[in-house]
Amino acid sequence: MAAAPGLEGTSTNGSGNNRDRLSELAARHLVQPWPVAGQIGDEARGLIRSGDGVYVQDEHGNRLIDGPAGMWCVNVGHRCKELADVLYDQAMALSYNSPWYTMSAPSAELAERLGKLAPGDLSHVFFTTGGSSAVESALRFMQFYNNVRGRPDKKLILSRGGAYHGSTYLSASLNGRPRDRDWMDGADHLVVKLTCPNPYRRPEGVSREAFTDWLVAEFEATIEEHGADRIGAFVGEPVMASGGVIIPPDDYLPRIAALCRKHDILYVSDEVVTAFGRLGHVFASKDVFGAQPDIITFAKGVTSGYFPLGGMMVSSRLFEELRRSNHPDAMYAHGLTYSSHPIGCAVAMKNLDLLEDGLLDHVREIAPYFLSQLKTLEELPLVGEVRGIGLMACVECVADHDSHNPLRLDTEVGQRIDAHCQDLGLLVRPLINMCVMSPPLTITRAQIDEMVRILREGITRTMADLRREGLWDG
Amino acid sequence: MAAAPGLEGTSTNGSGNNRDRLSELAARHLVQPWPVAGQIGDEARGLIRSGDGVYVQDEHGNRLIDGPAGMWCVNVGHRCKELADVLYDQAMALSYNSPWYTMSAPSAELAERLGKLAPGDLSHVFFTTGGSSAVESALRFMQFYNNVRGRPDKKLILSRGGAYHGSTYLSASLNGRPRDRDWMDGADHLVVKLTCPNPYRRPEGVSREAFTDWLVAEFEATIEEHGADRIGAFVGEPVMASGGVIIPPDDYLPRIAALCRKHDILYVSDEVVTAFGRLGHVFASKDVFGAQPDIITFAKGVTSGYFPLGGMMVSSRLFEELRRSNHPDAMYAHGLTYSSHPIGCAVAMKNLDLLEDGLLDHVREIAPYFLSQLKTLEELPLVGEVRGIGLMACVECVADHDSHNPLRLDTEVGQRIDAHCQDLGLLVRPLINMCVMSPPLTITRAQIDEMVRILREGITRTMADLRREGLWDG
Repeated sequence: MAAAPGLEGTSTNGSGNNRDRLSELAARHLVQPWPVAGQIGDEARGLIRSGDGVYVQDEHGNRLIDGPAGMWCVNVGHRCKELADVLYDQAMALSYNSPWYTMSAPSAELAERLGKLAPGDLSHVFFTTGGSSAVESALRFMQFYNNVRGRPDKKLILSRGGAYHGSTYLSASLNGRPRDRDWMDGADHLVVKLTCPNPYRRPEGVSREAFTDWLVAEFEATIEEHGADRIGAFVGEPVMASGGVIIPPDDYLPRIAALCRKHDILYVSDEVVTAFGRLGHVFASKDVFGAQPDIITFAKGVTSGYFPLGGMMVSSRLFEELRRSNHPDAMYAHGLTYSSHPIGCAVAMKNLDLLEDGLLDHVREIAPYFLSQLKTLEELPLVGEVRGIGLMACVECVADHDSHNPLRLDTEVGQRIDAHCQDLGLLVRPLINMCVMSPPLTITRAQIDEMVRILREGITRTMADLRREGLWDG
Repeated sequence: MAAAPGLEGTSTNGSGNNRDRLSELAARHLVQPWPVAGQIGDEARGLIRSGDGVYVQDEHGNRLIDGPAGMWCVNVGHRCKELADVLYDQAMALSYNSPWYTMSAPSAELAERLGKLAPGDLSHVFFTTGGSSAVESALRFMQFYNNVRGRPDKKLILSRGGAYHGSTYLSASLNGRPRDRDWMDGADHLVVKLTCPNPYRRPEGVSREAFTDWLVAEFEATIEEHGADRIGAFVGEPVMASGGVIIPPDDYLPRIAALCRKHDILYVSDEVVTAFGRLGHVFASKDVFGAQPDIITFAKGVTSGYFPLGGMMVSSRLFEELRRSNHPDAMYAHGLTYSSHPIGCAVAMKNLDLLEDGLLDHVREIAPYFLSQLKTLEELPLVGEVRGIGLMACVECVADHDSHNPLRLDTEVGQRIDAHCQDLGLLVRPLINMCVMSPPLTITRAQIDEMVRILREGITRTMADLRREGLWDG
């Protein structure tokens, strides 16, 4: 049975002699995300003691490069004094105000700034506490919008295989990875799944262009099948992150966006990972992929993970329609206690300063080096593909480089590589047979070299293990 | 049409001469909770500039008592240096770690502390970013739990009229106030609504005891009707907060809890408002109401609103069942980027220190004075009832004190009182025909006197207005 992914070497289950006090407390009292039934309520994960820049320090005092930047979020890096100062200062000025009745200066100022940065007419923002609540807000808004417009049947949501959109009942219903859904309920009657736009897994002998045509044709056929009058939204990540850094083929997103517009389907671009610098831009949908969404959801990088903040940018056009509707009293009865939180908004303002004062430029400058160095790992026979864009990348392992056949130990190979890399000074995010890299945006060339060197050695050691155990003959 | 509830005197819509820069930015770029279609995307609310203790300062420099403590959450008061220091210190030590792979010292230590404070065997905690995600976690856990136990049909959720449980698709489906649901979609097929246990609105001539018997009989009849094998959970606030501080009759909650246990229905006690000191205890379900839940959801007061944190305490019994199940690999595929956030957990630790170092005692000591002083407002003919418990109370206005008949301007009277009170130095939380008081727990006798004096004058002025406008003849 799979252990909780991650620090296998230091995690424990059941009784153990070397468990230190904190691990004991965690095993007795703390439940972390994605536990399995056999360990739930009796599990500890590896302890992180501190962070500084692109590094974290583990319970043994080892310094590790934070390969996944926490969870695609620590964009400006750990131990950022500017953000810590803002946390203190805003808490002493105004730590909380109810957005039901009042507003704060940081929320109004951040709203203006984001409204000007977002593409097209996405001039308004609604704030939440993270990605799941951002996607919930977008979906509940789509339902409200169509109720007010007298189209209560236009509610189906199009999503895709490999997608990840959150961990609430409705947002999770969109998730396209089987293991996210096997034992969990969802609003399946509201969701239609499309094919994952993964060029690496396109049918043999099919060109990228033909694959794109096929995906677009599937999208059109799905509209035809269910009826545009029954489809409310398409929700998609520009780059599928947790699905394994799936970068869609060129023209795919603009063509999907055009189909959405033509059929009055809201295009919700889920930029929880891609916004706020990961691809060298504040928002990536238009700047990187040339697609204009109706709604952009965001979280993570907006505060570099220092404060739970998320939200959605919404097209002014949609609000104008609502204001001119025949139901001016209809209430979008939606909002969170921590919507527009003054501390979160103040942190996001400073975080934007850091992005705009050089970090976005740095990402655009260093990303080609990051990708080209990682790409050298394709020399290793266990590596099927290294793909990436901006400062996000994925190393996908296969049994056979040419056929793309899966490994026998497919679900463990990422964890095995991670374990070796941790011994060597790098924290990896293992995803089944993949390792995802999305370091803090402040990473330097020397640190990229260090990261790639460790990853190469970790994969090499894993190949030796697999051969020795008779699990692989590559 | 109703304006956004709150600072009517200062909020604006459409163009206006006196709109200051921030209001202009907000109207152009910020969408706040619960907007109506006619104003969405073109609205500003009153600005709060700063906070200190039980007071906030508005855009005009006026000092106001924060009657609702933000949104039932600023329990230790505004401008708390101890919490601001923790925000800074933890951000500099470790600002973020991924709970998928790792853990932090603050999360393990807070988990232990909460596990010891929660009643019975609720020894484990799962952290989220607020109340909605806490309720989502509990409901998704119930679904997972019954899937693993081979009872996939045991999923119905019992909720009640007047309830408020959140603002995500599933959690909001439990909400029992009509205006929260009129234009919003929900998972109605998963929810069964029971009668609001409001003694004030019980049928004429029925005793409180007979009313309780009736509510319990309704609960039993509902189980009978739908079948215990189809009902997964009952979710209820010990005191309905946003429903108007509805305090259930004695014995109601223990009898409901016993019925849940008898029929293997998880009793989820939603303590987002009542926990962390509001009723003088860390958790209120058992200490105040004598009812042992299977899950307690919490948020708000756990960090006094300084950081978005929530979670659920879960019975160890449920985890033991899962660990011994035939599906040890089954995954509770649930969790948020910001689950177990180290800064949030560190803030909560310090917040608990403040509660345990005197604030809980203070609440228990001062609550009778708070309630007795507010109770004097029942002398006013517009006031039907003043009810409360701990430091939460509600002033309910009616047309006729004896018959409890509603006012003609029922939906506006709370806002009218609020407007007068703001002129006089008190922020009220208007709820239709009610005013809710839940001040910071640090409130003193002198500040209670000031609050009640202003509230009395605000209601008196409102009565004069209503009489003058011919809207009331009380």
